[in-house]
Amino acid sequence: MQLAPRIAHIAGTDGDGWGIYYRTREMIRAGERVLNLTIGEHDVKTDAAILTAMHGAAMAGHTGYTFGAGLPELRAAIAKRVQARTGVATRAENVVVTPGGQSALFSTHMALLDRGDTGLYCAPFYPTYPGTIRATGAEAVAVPTRSSRAFQPEAAAIMAAATPTARTLLINSPNNPTGVIYSRETLEGIAEAAQAADLWLISDEVYDTQVWEGQHLSPRALPGMAERTVVIGSMSKSHAMTGSRLGWVVAPEAVVEAITLLSTVTTYGVPAFIQHAALHALAQGEGFEAGIADPFRRRREIAARALAGSQAIRAIPSAGAMYVMLDIRATGLSGNAFAERLLEEERIAVMPGESFGAPAAGHCRVAMTIPDDDFAEAMARLAAFADRLLP
Amino acid sequence: MQLAPRIAHIAGTDGDGWGIYYRTREMIRAGERVLNLTIGEHDVKTDAAILTAMHGAAMAGHTGYTFGAGLPELRAAIAKRVQARTGVATRAENVVVTPGGQSALFSTHMALLDRGDTGLYCAPFYPTYPGTIRATGAEAVAVPTRSSRAFQPEAAAIMAAATPTARTLLINSPNNPTGVIYSRETLEGIAEAAQAADLWLISDEVYDTQVWEGQHLSPRALPGMAERTVVIGSMSKSHAMTGSRLGWVVAPEAVVEAITLLSTVTTYGVPAFIQHAALHALAQGEGFEAGIADPFRRRREIAARALAGSQAIRAIPSAGAMYVMLDIRATGLSGNAFAERLLEEERIAVMPGESFGAPAAGHCRVAMTIPDDDFAEAMARLAAFADRLLP
Repeated sequence: MQLAPRIAHIAGTDGDGWGIYYRTREMIRAGERVLNLTIGEHDVKTDAAILTAMHGAAMAGHTGYTFGAGLPELRAAIAKRVQARTGVATRAENVVVTPGGQSALFSTHMALLDRGDTGLYCAPFYPTYPGTIRATGAEAVAVPTRSSRAFQPEAAAIMAAATPTARTLLINSPNNPTGVIYSRETLEGIAEAAQAADLWLISDEVYDTQVWEGQHLSPRALPGMAERTVVIGSMSKSHAMTGSRLGWVVAPEAVVEAITLLSTVTTYGVPAFIQHAALHALAQGEGFEAGIADPFRRRREIAARALAGSQAIRAIPSAGAMYVMLDIRATGLSGNAFAERLLEEERIAVMPGESFGAPAAGHCRVAMTIPDDDFAEAMARLAAFADRLLP
Repeated sequence: MQLAPRIAHIAGTDGDGWGIYYRTREMIRAGERVLNLTIGEHDVKTDAAILTAMHGAAMAGHTGYTFGAGLPELRAAIAKRVQARTGVATRAENVVVTPGGQSALFSTHMALLDRGDTGLYCAPFYPTYPGTIRATGAEAVAVPTRSSRAFQPEAAAIMAAATPTARTLLINSPNNPTGVIYSRETLEGIAEAAQAADLWLISDEVYDTQVWEGQHLSPRALPGMAERTVVIGSMSKSHAMTGSRLGWVVAPEAVVEAITLLSTVTTYGVPAFIQHAALHALAQGEGFEAGIADPFRRRREIAARALAGSQAIRAIPSAGAMYVMLDIRATGLSGNAFAERLLEEERIAVMPGESFGAPAAGHCRVAMTIPDDDFAEAMARLAAFADRLLP
């Protein structure tokens, strides 16, 4: 009995850095103290008030089927939020609610890509990106970026990857894994390339509340781009609601309608009580969101101080998101080898850059997702460890 | 800017009976009294104790990412349940938890079908079936069943549809829309055909607690079938948890692993607090489930009494699920025309058989999902309406 060829295709041939992640989990389960900097998830739980709102909605009877694109009031709230933050006219009809940001990514690619097509994504990349594209039957092709350019995508690299079968380009700013925010110049270059190659631009903006330098700019706001841009959003990072699985797509109405149609066969709607929890959370406003983002802002400073004197580590300046990317090539080790030894010798777990694609080889991703004191200890020991590796 | 051809393909060319459904919703919203027999959903909400268990789990901190195939304890509980009900050895490794039964159907077809393949399904069919198959890129081909045979699938019809590209066969017993339970003889014929044509058998058993006559038999229990059978289950119908979106797949380990891999790009896990709610609900035992099923058992009797004297209506004996299928061909009307006039003239909404495929033309599906008194009134008026249509 055989599986669909799709299944082998999804896994692809990318490097797999999850060995470190799973080994770390095992060590912690076995009672060892490991400073775990691998997880892109807050060290706080979802706020009790949000959970109480969810329970209130459930007890009030919001426990039945919710067909379609999402509760009208939630679609309207998301549209209002997106319009306020980007300045782009956005109506409820431009929004479809999905069970999480990953589902939003998947549905979008399913609506835009088919077998024979190519979907582009920038490397380094969030590990699900190539598999998400491949699950549609399309080929996934990486657009490389350069550490020396702080991993900002360059229009020439996009044009070089944009063969005639290319239909979509997936970008992510603020970026996981690099912590980089795309500059206006970068985004204008991306927009130009998307227009020249007639690509849909899929902009994953789930970290848009975690901005430490400059401003988040959505490419949907650039001239002529709203009609070809699909924005992915989520409550996971902005409201520490990772486990609630509530995301959305903001797009031209034809895309929203396609994803809504798709949802009738893929998910059949999102629990109404979770949609009500999201409504409550969104109503808490920017102060609440800043509170969720604050620990990462603090820890970014901690990391900068700890690494300032290191000869072995060059940190890519973290302008946003909950990550800092470390260039450890001066040690002579690969990211994999560095992460292996760091875990073995120091009981500090980081993700090898190789797990995010070739351009991040010789780098490691640090997730700033443990309490400040532990984080400061981890960064100081990591810096000392790296410096000891220097010839 | 174009969408993927997949999107047009999903919609297909099936008759669409949802016009009645949406019109009914509009009429009810406008304040009209409509006896609404279109909805396959309980008229009770999810039990407060289940919701309280969910809230308890959320407040206890189960609000973060849950990767993989589901919580180990929930997979074990589902395996134990399936083994107890079917007698087939089932381990936690045979179970993957999904955000609802529809997601389980979709993931299963994604794991087993690719472009160039054909997925079979029996008609009359639950309306998402063909679109679910088509979303994978495969062709969806109906295996017709006959009203005169109480819509029991026949092996000869399966073999006739099983061209060399056919890889899967989707069945559903207890059946939506017909209320029929497949006999042992029927299931043995299906199993034989699946083996002869080397098909995966996908058995949607979400109504397995709603059995009014005889016993539910899972084809996974037939000789040699466990290795080629995938069972779809859900908390929706058994525990009145439609809006919680909690389903599962029971399958050989290779299929479970494929669906787990797929989940990393489609959904990224199911909310842990909902999984804990499901654990609590499953622990309530058969008495609780019988209580959820009882209203449909009662109403099935009500329907039988109301229709006993009708000259115009022949009811397909409802042996399970929350539906009764009415053969109204004696009136000379199509299912569509009958449903239209019934809504216009009597303010009673039923689903035209045509929305479930050609074999149900000239029929209507009654969902027994309104309170007993209203249901009795609806069935009496429906019978009288039909008899007035006789020449």
